[in-house]
Amino acid sequence: METLEAIYKRISIREYTEEAVSRADLEILLRAAFSAPTAANGQPWEFVVIDEKDILDKVRRNFVFARYEAPAAIVVCDNSKLGLKGQDKEIWVCDCSAAIENMLLAATDIGLASVWIGIFPIESRMQKMREIMNMPEYINPLGMVYVGHGAYEAQGRCRYNEKAVYWQQYDPERKHKKKDKPVVGHYAD
Amino acid sequence: METLEAIYKRISIREYTEEAVSRADLEILLRAAFSAPTAANGQPWEFVVIDEKDILDKVRRNFVFARYEAPAAIVVCDNSKLGLKGQDKEIWVCDCSAAIENMLLAATDIGLASVWIGIFPIESRMQKMREIMNMPEYINPLGMVYVGHGAYEAQGRCRYNEKAVYWQQYDPERKHKKKDKPVVGHYAD
Repeated sequence: METLEAIYKRISIREYTEEAVSRADLEILLRAAFSAPTAANGQPWEFVVIDEKDILDKVRRNFVFARYEAPAAIVVCDNSKLGLKGQDKEIWVCDCSAAIENMLLAATDIGLASVWIGIFPIESRMQKMREIMNMPEYINPLGMVYVGHGAYEAQGRCRYNEKAVYWQQYDPERKHKKKDKPVVGHYAD
Repeated sequence: METLEAIYKRISIREYTEEAVSRADLEILLRAAFSAPTAANGQPWEFVVIDEKDILDKVRRNFVFARYEAPAAIVVCDNSKLGLKGQDKEIWVCDCSAAIENMLLAATDIGLASVWIGIFPIESRMQKMREIMNMPEYINPLGMVYVGHGAYEAQGRCRYNEKAVYWQQYDPERKHKKKDKPVVGHYAD
């Protein structure tokens, strides 16, 4: 699939068939993740791939907001021992987010459905994920990508919003109204 | 270009020819940005496109780490009045990072060179960008994408690192050494 087509087509899908995701397809997602940029080439990321149902069920039991029955998940974390220190240290959020976006696009490209489940910045979710996954405190789980074969069809809609685009300089006088945001359904983010 | 090819090919390019980037191409990058997912469909993002040389020069004068002579830049910001509140409020970092990654891939796809310049999380850089761009305090600039026609050829290398991949559960006993990180040059992140 063409790059721009995948970018426009990507959409969160939250229902999946029972069909497994092959290890080969999971590897494609991982390779995409490892191709994202990281600040100062820090590569602070680590990935936990889950495709055993009992572990996925444990995740689902613990996260009420993430009870989607996907056959696989990839948890994306920062290892704070590996990344940048000092005033740069929060940059891992950017690095890991770019990796997730690459995975979502790769999934779209190979015909898989996916959704980004947010863990960061909610400390209680991060702590719960550490407990479930046996992660020490220095591991920061950013999010989780559920992946599988979609149980329904959906397609992204570009949410281009001219009120959010400025040329040459910001204009603080511009007024934003709630209705300016392109409306999409629950399943269309 | 195929999606996976663009994902693997994307790389930071820091020297550009003097050729301008067309408004049509800048719009392609913006449309890609607006196609990224945002948490709870919050769409907190705003974009400032700069293609006037005097303003770009002002940015370059103020950011010693970002003196690359690109003919255009897109500053990606969070408008904290538009985004999620409470314990979710830092999620804008994820939303804006995904938008930037989409722009980098779209640029790669249409043959443009680009580099992600980090502003967040360094408060002094964020404050300086607010001053230059006339942004109020409630605007959080995350980063800036320089875009142009590359002055040299480079191609991404997949930095797949099996030591950063776990199956089913994290393993805190696994030791990481600095040499485990795939080595790439300064221009290859």
